[in-house]
Amino acid sequence: MVMQQIQPREQPAEEAPISLVLFSGTDDKLTAAAVMAVGAAAMGRPVNIFLQYWALEAFTADSVHKDHGASAEAGSDGEKLLSDTAASGKTQHWSELLAQAKEVGDVQIHACALSMEMFELTHGDLDPLVDGVQGVAAFMLAATGPIVFI
Amino acid sequence: MVMQQIQPREQPAEEAPISLVLFSGTDDKLTAAAVMAVGAAAMGRPVNIFLQYWALEAFTADSVHKDHGASAEAGSDGEKLLSDTAASGKTQHWSELLAQAKEVGDVQIHACALSMEMFELTHGDLDPLVDGVQGVAAFMLAATGPIVFI
Amino acid sequence: MVMQQIQPREQPAEEAPISLVLFSGTDDKLTAAAVMAVGAAAMGRPVNIFLQYWALEAFTADSVHKDHGASAEAGSDGEKLLSDTAASGKTQHWSELLAQAKEVGDVQIHACALSMEMFELTHGDLDPLVDGVQGVAAFMLAATGPIVFI
Repeated sequence: MVMQQIQPREQPAEEAPISLVLFSGTDDKLTAAAVMAVGAAAMGRPVNIFLQYWALEAFTADSVHKDHGASAEAGSDGEKLLSDTAASGKTQHWSELLAQAKEVGDVQIHACALSMEMFELTHGDLDPLVDGVQGVAAFMLAATGPIVFI
Repeated sequence: MVMQQIQPREQPAEEAPISLVLFSGTDDKLTAAAVMAVGAAAMGRPVNIFLQYWALEAFTADSVHKDHGASAEAGSDGEKLLSDTAASGKTQHWSELLAQAKEVGDVQIHACALSMEMFELTHGDLDPLVDGVQGVAAFMLAATGPIVFI
Repeated sequence: MVMQQIQPREQPAEEAPISLVLFSGTDDKLTAAAVMAVGAAAMGRPVNIFLQYWALEAFTADSVHKDHGASAEAGSDGEKLLSDTAASGKTQHWSELLAQAKEVGDVQIHACALSMEMFELTHGDLDPLVDGVQGVAAFMLAATGPIVFI
């Protein structure tokens, strides 16, 4: 649904990457992040995604398609709206949006090494969307453009 | 109260815009965002604001001046402090700060087309502070400077 | 533990600073912010930290070492994991990480003047990690690189 509106531009890929630090693991924030990644990828901008804390937990292989709830402020009305929207089939799941973003552009997804340790996870526990595990220094080294914490 | 501290600089307006993605609809985060917009506008930097999810809901015409509560972590003490501060008249409402920011500088506020669809809103449902509805691609295309997710 | 993985680079310090607006006062987000600050400092990038709202409260002298809980979404399992991790001694407290970041690089921490007023605090109430009080205009003026809201 997002992709229908977007025409990839012909342009040099020399723009600075957009670095997304995903910290939150609720479906509303993960969807907002995925929409931003799709938009950036379609504009020809590289996107580096770094998974920490509760967002990392949401990317474990057996967790991706579970219900991750909404931000606390959503309230019960907001939660209901989100699950109705998801059930209507009018919107795509954030994992599908991220898969699209990877097809359209240069989108890398890495798990934060410290968070991996905290949750006692190995690469094999993660969804195939995740390209690898990275330290914060490597992530920051590549973060020559905007850094968005979600 | 913010404006008293700020002297607009003489400078070329060629600096990259600050792009604010407003996702949260609580009064504390909306105020933090509005203060940032005022500060940036006074510095001569263009500001592009993109309203999603619960922030978009807070900008509907009949919602702006309602109590939108605080972030979950505020607790009851924090909530009380915020409403006492608001009642004291020492601080300005975030909608007034944004109106000021628009007077001082180049500040655009757009609603996210996908969130408009999700909440089944039309432009007429929104507060006049909102300049229009925009797709994420258009927003990202203009986001050549920092991108702040709030 | 973070520092063991990081080798400071030889490079000109002319890169734009990373500006971190700390709004949230929970231990998980403060740790994520501190890890980012350490990583950036080790890369030779200046870091400007601006403390607002609940994050400012967490930096008051008698509050730093208290338990600040976790984001609402953590749930009771997440809260338990965080406090077990902290008790294990495998990770460092965010205040220690920030102290390290200040030793390694050019890291400034300022309290937001408006939030100081709201909480009726003076500089003497704050932890020595905080370098001073700053208005939002001064903060935005220095924010020539990425701006991260946490």
